[in-house]
Amino acid sequence: MHLAGGRLRDFARGCDALGGGGGGQARYALPLAAHAVELTGPVQVVQPAELPPDGLVMPCTFLGAPAIGAERIGTCREAATIRVHIERHFGKPVVAMLCNEIGGFHGAASVALAAHAGLPMLDADGMGRAFPGMSRVAMHLAGVTPDPVVLADEHDRVVAVHAGDGWAERMARSVVVGFGDRGVSSEYVMTVDQVADAVITGSVGKALRIGELIGEAASVPDAARAIVAEFDGLLIAEGRVTAALPEPGRHTPATIEGTGADSGRTLRLEAGHEYLAVIEDGEVLATVPDIITVFDTYTGEALGAGELRYGQRVVAVALPCPDVWRTPAGLDLVGPAAFGLDLPYRPVAAS
Amino acid sequence: MHLAGGRLRDFARGCDALGGGGGGQARYALPLAAHAVELTGPVQVVQPAELPPDGLVMPCTFLGAPAIGAERIGTCREAATIRVHIERHFGKPVVAMLCNEIGGFHGAASVALAAHAGLPMLDADGMGRAFPGMSRVAMHLAGVTPDPVVLADEHDRVVAVHAGDGWAERMARSVVVGFGDRGVSSEYVMTVDQVADAVITGSVGKALRIGELIGEAASVPDAARAIVAEFDGLLIAEGRVTAALPEPGRHTPATIEGTGADSGRTLRLEAGHEYLAVIEDGEVLATVPDIITVFDTYTGEALGAGELRYGQRVVAVALPCPDVWRTPAGLDLVGPAAFGLDLPYRPVAAS
Repeated sequence: MHLAGGRLRDFARGCDALGGGGGGQARYALPLAAHAVELTGPVQVVQPAELPPDGLVMPCTFLGAPAIGAERIGTCREAATIRVHIERHFGKPVVAMLCNEIGGFHGAASVALAAHAGLPMLDADGMGRAFPGMSRVAMHLAGVTPDPVVLADEHDRVVAVHAGDGWAERMARSVVVGFGDRGVSSEYVMTVDQVADAVITGSVGKALRIGELIGEAASVPDAARAIVAEFDGLLIAEGRVTAALPEPGRHTPATIEGTGADSGRTLRLEAGHEYLAVIEDGEVLATVPDIITVFDTYTGEALGAGELRYGQRVVAVALPCPDVWRTPAGLDLVGPAAFGLDLPYRPVAAS
Repeated sequence: MHLAGGRLRDFARGCDALGGGGGGQARYALPLAAHAVELTGPVQVVQPAELPPDGLVMPCTFLGAPAIGAERIGTCREAATIRVHIERHFGKPVVAMLCNEIGGFHGAASVALAAHAGLPMLDADGMGRAFPGMSRVAMHLAGVTPDPVVLADEHDRVVAVHAGDGWAERMARSVVVGFGDRGVSSEYVMTVDQVADAVITGSVGKALRIGELIGEAASVPDAARAIVAEFDGLLIAEGRVTAALPEPGRHTPATIEGTGADSGRTLRLEAGHEYLAVIEDGEVLATVPDIITVFDTYTGEALGAGELRYGQRVVAVALPCPDVWRTPAGLDLVGPAAFGLDLPYRPVAAS
């Protein structure tokens, strides 16, 4: 499997669908990925079994204020600088890049980072979706240390943080502020043989497949049905946004009123950085860490939690999260309570 | 030569005298140094010729807001953490600590840092006095790179910055803010054979000697006369502070009116972080980078630029700065214009 051309667009669409409304929009990372692939050729997607067991896997992601990133897009060559530093620090070669967060911007951007670093992408990621926070990754649950967090800006400045789990993110963010609030970060570096129990496998292929299903379907509702059928998800409803307060980072309920076969239904959508829960008549239909996705009925784009607007026609679905998030430790880290919601977790099951 | 007991007090007094009114007060670092020496034994002071030529010399200093440091004093074991990191990075042993800034707080604190790191102190420093800013050191003029800047806090968190001369300080300060505005920093690491042309030699011995002269003299004016005689300085005047606006960091002129033999004279003292110039009737008597020192006539303590108060009885002297600061490149970095003064540099000569 490789990523280039039209598959990049499919992949980016799939990343947005897996973002659960968070992680920024993959469509804005698409030009970065397309340009990088134009320079370096397609990025190969590999399985752990294809790699030498003691080679290093380098997670990599942009860090900084999204508003700054909108203008200061970076070069993605930051990843090449980071690779050099990591290989020197660990004394062995990096053999693959790992996408930290497949959902949204960072999924698509990781193609560009891999291309510039001259690395294949592992068919995996750290979240299987998007979450805010450096430690909400499967690597953290598996006990992998984030140290050293290696950060770079687009001028080859490199900073390495050795601060342990509790302070890694705090220090990394302080460093990125010094960079001017935009940089690339790598943490939770592992060997290939550590990867099996420490990442979400198959994420890249899954995002690509979701993008293909969107591209192939005759309509967006058809695509939504195909996606929930293939990935054991739940089609929540088709409807219209009737209340939206797009303030990312706050818990701002939006409302979707059903249309067509769903007429008369009213869904309350709790959202922070991501969609956190869908509630109908007091009944919880889905919550984090399951992936709540709101497709624009006309464009097929998965709408970010900050992109909902009054009157939009949408199709809402929920996809099951990776199993690791359904464990007690997983729910402690990313369950409803971790996002301030006093709701039980009700696992999404096939409709 | 070694530092412990009463010599520590002499050394701290000398550090304050060399601070030129800046660098914080060495007397506040004295408890740190005394406690460290109590734990580890006296700190040896060594000459470069006593060390293996390819051993590493590690400059080390506290970084962060002075107001924070007044309460959060650190453990000085940060230096031990930094030493481990530097030895791993460079792949060879650190054989001595270098005081970055002999003037004021950092001179005395470096004894504590050396003690905890288990290192002797080189009889040298980076400035021969105190200056604000990471790059106002002889190492910078000699072309030594500051990279990596290795920073630690008192919980063994370590951050290494590879950012080049221009951004080293900016990134280091950003890191220290992340630490909670207090940390220890090491930069401009050198081998012993690089040291000869890249540091100010003899600084530790000089501070100690000045402290001894203060301790031995029958009075503070006598001590001031002995110091200027031994170090080719200028006794400016004895007098009384008649105007002082103690706002460190701003250019705030103070006034000293002569007393005794100096009755009728009026000195204007320009000050920023340090004393920047002494002017009498429009004539410049001394400017940075020469060292302007204002002793309290009763205690013999060298008063910081922020410590002047109306009515204090003082003795003002000026000591010549190290030769490296009198070169064109030196004056560019630390001459009057570098501190915003439109004054010529007039080298202090023996009175």
